[in-house]
Amino acid sequence: MVPINLDDYERLARERLPQMVFDYYFGGAGDELTIRENRVGWQRLRLRPRVLVDVATRDLSTTVLGQRLSFPVLTAPCAFNALAHPEGECAVARAATAAGIIQVVSTAGTFSLEEVAAAAPAGARWFQLYCYRDRGVTRSLVERATGAGYRALCLTVDAPLVGRRDRDERNRFGLPPGMTWKNLERVGLDRMEAREEGSALVQYISEIWDPSLTWEAIEWLRSLSQLPLVIKGILTADDAGRAVDSGAAVIIVSNHGGRQLDGTLSTSEALAEVADAVGDRVEILVDGGIRRGSDILKALALGARAVLIGRPYLWALAVAGQAGVEHLLELLRDELDLDMALSGRPTIASIDRTLLCRADGELKK
Amino acid sequence: MVPINLDDYERLARERLPQMVFDYYFGGAGDELTIRENRVGWQRLRLRPRVLVDVATRDLSTTVLGQRLSFPVLTAPCAFNALAHPEGECAVARAATAAGIIQVVSTAGTFSLEEVAAAAPAGARWFQLYCYRDRGVTRSLVERATGAGYRALCLTVDAPLVGRRDRDERNRFGLPPGMTWKNLERVGLDRMEAREEGSALVQYISEIWDPSLTWEAIEWLRSLSQLPLVIKGILTADDAGRAVDSGAAVIIVSNHGGRQLDGTLSTSEALAEVADAVGDRVEILVDGGIRRGSDILKALALGARAVLIGRPYLWALAVAGQAGVEHLLELLRDELDLDMALSGRPTIASIDRTLLCRADGELKK
Amino acid sequence: MVPINLDDYERLARERLPQMVFDYYFGGAGDELTIRENRVGWQRLRLRPRVLVDVATRDLSTTVLGQRLSFPVLTAPCAFNALAHPEGECAVARAATAAGIIQVVSTAGTFSLEEVAAAAPAGARWFQLYCYRDRGVTRSLVERATGAGYRALCLTVDAPLVGRRDRDERNRFGLPPGMTWKNLERVGLDRMEAREEGSALVQYISEIWDPSLTWEAIEWLRSLSQLPLVIKGILTADDAGRAVDSGAAVIIVSNHGGRQLDGTLSTSEALAEVADAVGDRVEILVDGGIRRGSDILKALALGARAVLIGRPYLWALAVAGQAGVEHLLELLRDELDLDMALSGRPTIASIDRTLLCRADGELKK
Amino acid sequence: MVPINLDDYERLARERLPQMVFDYYFGGAGDELTIRENRVGWQRLRLRPRVLVDVATRDLSTTVLGQRLSFPVLTAPCAFNALAHPEGECAVARAATAAGIIQVVSTAGTFSLEEVAAAAPAGARWFQLYCYRDRGVTRSLVERATGAGYRALCLTVDAPLVGRRDRDERNRFGLPPGMTWKNLERVGLDRMEAREEGSALVQYISEIWDPSLTWEAIEWLRSLSQLPLVIKGILTADDAGRAVDSGAAVIIVSNHGGRQLDGTLSTSEALAEVADAVGDRVEILVDGGIRRGSDILKALALGARAVLIGRPYLWALAVAGQAGVEHLLELLRDELDLDMALSGRPTIASIDRTLLCRADGELKK
Repeated sequence: MVPINLDDYERLARERLPQMVFDYYFGGAGDELTIRENRVGWQRLRLRPRVLVDVATRDLSTTVLGQRLSFPVLTAPCAFNALAHPEGECAVARAATAAGIIQVVSTAGTFSLEEVAAAAPAGARWFQLYCYRDRGVTRSLVERATGAGYRALCLTVDAPLVGRRDRDERNRFGLPPGMTWKNLERVGLDRMEAREEGSALVQYISEIWDPSLTWEAIEWLRSLSQLPLVIKGILTADDAGRAVDSGAAVIIVSNHGGRQLDGTLSTSEALAEVADAVGDRVEILVDGGIRRGSDILKALALGARAVLIGRPYLWALAVAGQAGVEHLLELLRDELDLDMALSGRPTIASIDRTLLCRADGELKK
Repeated sequence: MVPINLDDYERLARERLPQMVFDYYFGGAGDELTIRENRVGWQRLRLRPRVLVDVATRDLSTTVLGQRLSFPVLTAPCAFNALAHPEGECAVARAATAAGIIQVVSTAGTFSLEEVAAAAPAGARWFQLYCYRDRGVTRSLVERATGAGYRALCLTVDAPLVGRRDRDERNRFGLPPGMTWKNLERVGLDRMEAREEGSALVQYISEIWDPSLTWEAIEWLRSLSQLPLVIKGILTADDAGRAVDSGAAVIIVSNHGGRQLDGTLSTSEALAEVADAVGDRVEILVDGGIRRGSDILKALALGARAVLIGRPYLWALAVAGQAGVEHLLELLRDELDLDMALSGRPTIASIDRTLLCRADGELKK
Repeated sequence: MVPINLDDYERLARERLPQMVFDYYFGGAGDELTIRENRVGWQRLRLRPRVLVDVATRDLSTTVLGQRLSFPVLTAPCAFNALAHPEGECAVARAATAAGIIQVVSTAGTFSLEEVAAAAPAGARWFQLYCYRDRGVTRSLVERATGAGYRALCLTVDAPLVGRRDRDERNRFGLPPGMTWKNLERVGLDRMEAREEGSALVQYISEIWDPSLTWEAIEWLRSLSQLPLVIKGILTADDAGRAVDSGAAVIIVSNHGGRQLDGTLSTSEALAEVADAVGDRVEILVDGGIRRGSDILKALALGARAVLIGRPYLWALAVAGQAGVEHLLELLRDELDLDMALSGRPTIASIDRTLLCRADGELKK
Repeated sequence: MVPINLDDYERLARERLPQMVFDYYFGGAGDELTIRENRVGWQRLRLRPRVLVDVATRDLSTTVLGQRLSFPVLTAPCAFNALAHPEGECAVARAATAAGIIQVVSTAGTFSLEEVAAAAPAGARWFQLYCYRDRGVTRSLVERATGAGYRALCLTVDAPLVGRRDRDERNRFGLPPGMTWKNLERVGLDRMEAREEGSALVQYISEIWDPSLTWEAIEWLRSLSQLPLVIKGILTADDAGRAVDSGAAVIIVSNHGGRQLDGTLSTSEALAEVADAVGDRVEILVDGGIRRGSDILKALALGARAVLIGRPYLWALAVAGQAGVEHLLELLRDELDLDMALSGRPTIASIDRTLLCRADGELKK
């Protein structure tokens, strides 16, 4: 099968990846209700196309934090890309750069942040991080990311502890011998091999992440670096307001792809709330459940500046490495391009709430 | 199996048609959400029958643009009818004429518009068209349609580009050798054979249709011909208002059978909105998801003057040619006739919004 | 399997009856949406039980038209009971009488109304009728029913024509040799054998029923007899008001078990509307989708005085004749008895709208 | 399979238990609609996590009636625990005590209340009871429970009669030889062996329980003992108000796990209503459909002080006796602990209505 949409890549990856790896990428917390609702949430929204608009040329480009994107997509900070393909985060870096988009590089990389940066020097990337019990570890990561030319710091705030994913518990998920949290090698925290029982990830993280983090940490992080701060994992208007007040430059509406707390607001529900609350004060991104160009269109109409995709690029990476990710981004870009034409919104700026309603006519305010 | 309803014809056609052809007719854009919602949208509406009305005689006839229809159905402008049956559009012309309804003939016919007209001279038909990059092509089609006695021009406005239908991409959909866009033969644009990869249709259309069309084109089209103008592909009140202002005589509420932009309003949702907005100023038709006489009843109750059916007549054409289409129209007419009797609305004029409510009592305004 | 609930009888009957007969009883019009919605409509309503009520003795008895029922159920007027069992309507008569409830005897009986009356002289029964093109036929039936001691006339008003049931079309439904519309033997209209194609019922009825009936007929019918008039087949407040104004003593909210017009209001939706409109002026019954004692409880809470069951008694009749119907009525009675106890409503009079709400708290007005 | 969540225990127990026993525990009344809705009701609620809260330490402990619980769970009063495991209620007693929670001991124990108390003397437990036709039986049970150190009396009020569970009818559910209602041995009411037909439980209970109980009984019960009174089986605001007025110290919102009246309010719906009505005047517990830590979180957010789990501990008991129950409680506790961290509510007191909304944004008042 030649993959012609994002779901095709998932189907192909399912055949190729070891069960433990596929499950780690695919699965989520609890009963995986949030995974389902993220997807269905986008599908429930209805598009209201406008006809007889000149769509001969479409311009999908936008900016996030002043950085130009060829189309409003970033790659989300997924862990352990080398589980999918030996070139891991480096292949993603090259694909994102080729596509003209931003890669958000995970702390939990199987290549170091310097290696990723070196793999595609021309590219724009952000560094995602957690805060460690040992603040020195965090500080050092910030310094290294700054030094390596990363453009923003992305703090994930929905993971004071790691979610419990039953698939990983059953599979006793851990990294294979020789694969490590490369960024933490210098501080001796890079080993996370499979253990006797349960998920090695859960056990590892409970030892090193700092679950006592509060908004004070935002101030501290901002003191470490001139880089703009992106806060990832906001689902409510209240927290969005606090994030803006604390100086966040970007908010990523996210429930961590359903991998942390099962049963939350879906991402489309949360995006509407957050955009209504702070849409005029901060740039808003969203991830979770985006699989089609029309999903991007809906997210932008609700108020997102761009979206992040996570699992899909892992599937493409597993199937065909860098070329796979490039192809996947091209498929998604083409879908968005066409859907912008067909909805009569040839530019990003022309996409607004008038493009949407719910089933049977509500919303559209 | 002797077909006794429209779905029977679909089942039979599925067995008989080559997969590529069945998929081309059956499928739609993206995840085919809109195809499903079109169908379910009609089913969700509830009928409120009126009893003890004299229904001994029912009159299903109506007029559209002053033209009498024996019952409120037109055949939609579907492309390439010869894929279903060698007599293609000509067989449909004869069936529609025999049934006393209007055939809306697609530009993308496998017979020329003159051949179709000659196949059933007594029939009433409209000519559907797109606007080409070369306006001379459009002008010539308009002149030919006028000359061949067509009664109206139907401009499709939801297709500045053609939708991406994954089935066609996989099947590398194209026309078999010898079959062409017959109407474009004179301008040398009739060849659309299968290509190395992807849908030949998508590639073909991207080269010749004009994606820069705006409302100005309506004015231009109206200047070419005295024929009334039908605008097909409107889904919102705003666009309906502009269509009326620009002089459209008929609006067809349509999402192109879910083949263009996936995830739009369903046709029943859009019809309610459009009818509320301009129902008193223009004739409104609707297509998408109509499979039962009771669906027609619901569409008329929402404010449509008539409905178009697309896929179903292709199934009947595939199964039994002209006779199949005639039989199918008879089945649908009989269903509507009975349902008008059983709902206490023996004439088209007696069908109004009081006949409808949503599940659990809403609507009915 | 020993049947312990109504659905068990359906399962058993499905095994035993010829397909054509099972389909005739089981099926409905169109896509059978209304059959499904009738069932689901009751299930969607939520019960609000009241605790610590003395329910040591329950009194399920009620009256309809002053006639005592041991519990609030009547057998609905189903046609051709002998298709299920040789004793047909006579077995049902004996079972209903034994159970202390009213049998509504269908005109379309396979035994004459006199035979049914003679089968259980002590029982109370109503005679259901249609109006024929030849009013003499109707008048004669009314006279015979009056003479045979029937207590009410039940005019079915949702069938100016008979619904189109695709199962019957496929099966070419007709009566087997020797079985007839016994009540119409005297007027030579009793033969309805299977025909070359389609449903014999549809063809038969289109020739003899009067589709021109209006409210005037109610006046005429009332002039023929002193018997109270029951109007069966009302789904809206408007028609309910007219029925009351025209002198109906009882309204039966019904969509003919989904066998006439597919896609109507469900019976629970219609009951709520009708009860709100005329609940204080007339006795209201309901049929359609009742399969559990708790469904009866819900119907009574919405405002019905009693319910009719149709298909279930046919299944029991098919499985075990009179004894089967008696057992089925006992099962249903026992369920209602228990559910009245468990909801803290030990008498029929104590069942009201406070017992109900919709999912997530609406209704309960 | 090593069980890692509550549903795993159900799957394992299904394999191990005799069908009659599994069905008795698993099944419910009627069509088991309420069982399904209890589960789905919790799943439909959406969590609104708060980020950047210090959750380094979580305190799951709470009190019910002043008694400390290590986490807000009690074991529900399920009958006949020895059907699952020979040590029955005694094993549960030891597990609950080890876990630091309250066991609500059923009257219908297969061990006497004194045996259960002796099995885990350090534990806190309540005694659940019904009222018998012979009030002396009830009085004697109250005296024995008081004497044996039980901390509260829990009167079940949703069972004036026992619900009809079709599974038990089919299986002719009864106790195997040698197993009895141990608590009623002294009064000679302990035998409930399988009978010729139907459920022995239904027949047994109809003879001894008092279906005439009213609120007066509450007063009488309170006169018998100084123990606080818990009323179990309230679903509406009205009854909750009466329960508080009559001196109940705790209300348990419950529909008896869907085993009594099928089609009631789901437990989450009822909890919201009851908490709104009397949440400030009484302690409220809830049972029914709780299978995940996030369900507990939702229940507490709606206003419950703690939840009861029933079926799940029976599955664990069947799979591994006391150790199984301990493990199950640990799994549930760990899930709640993590979900409190991930929702930014590190203490029970921090869990309130702001944590919840319905799909698409309603509620949250």
